[in-house]
Amino acid sequence: MKLVILHCREFGFELGKKGKLAEEVEEESASVSNCMVALICVEKEDGNEKIERAANEISSLAEKVSSKEIVIFPFAHLSNELAPPEDAKRIARGIYDQLEGYSRTWVPFGWFKIWKLESMGHSLASNFRSL
Amino acid sequence: MKLVILHCREFGFELGKKGKLAEEVEEESASVSNCMVALICVEKEDGNEKIERAANEISSLAEKVSSKEIVIFPFAHLSNELAPPEDAKRIARGIYDQLEGYSRTWVPFGWFKIWKLESMGHSLASNFRSL
Repeated sequence: MKLVILHCREFGFELGKKGKLAEEVEEESASVSNCMVALICVEKEDGNEKIERAANEISSLAEKVSSKEIVIFPFAHLSNELAPPEDAKRIARGIYDQLEGYSRTWVPFGWFKIWKLESMGHSLASNFRSL
Repeated sequence: MKLVILHCREFGFELGKKGKLAEEVEEESASVSNCMVALICVEKEDGNEKIERAANEISSLAEKVSSKEIVIFPFAHLSNELAPPEDAKRIARGIYDQLEGYSRTWVPFGWFKIWKLESMGHSLASNFRSL
């Protein structure tokens, strides 16, 4: 699993066309401020044991920058060794579920979307983890 | 080398504090529209032979989306196997130099910075390459 975790002033998305694997959604757009944005790329060998590890990495960084707002963004563009989509969705959603102490935003899986972010400029704003 | 290449409606940065390895700069901020943003993470084993390969990947994607505007963003957060900073800077700058047929923006190396982007929502908007 590869994670890019960014402390952002702003993050937002707006859904466009459905991809083949698009899930049903309630919200077609969202916008949040002062948030930790976790781009999550689930890889072939990743099992459920990665869920808690990833959630701990995200919450640990959120604590350090005093953010209570987390965005979980399934993002298939950090590796060439991708997990099957159903596994990727289940594991990313598991990370979301694990972070129940936070205000959370889920970026819908399998949709084409416009998204934007503004990253903060401090030393803990950009982080990479390989689990 | 790991590359995340995003077709963006907008990209911008604003420099903050100097890091230890900050280079001298002329422009402390920039903002561009309809651009290919290449986040480039140079790894330990990467030599000069990666410069042309990376430039070709970026220009090939830029052609596909008809963008003549490229942003080269040295970004150390896509791998744990980082090249020494001087090598990373030289190679990323080499990629910039190679793309001389384009309007180019260089995101200064070694500075803390606020940065923002808005990614397009089409099927070629987000791309990953491992070279």
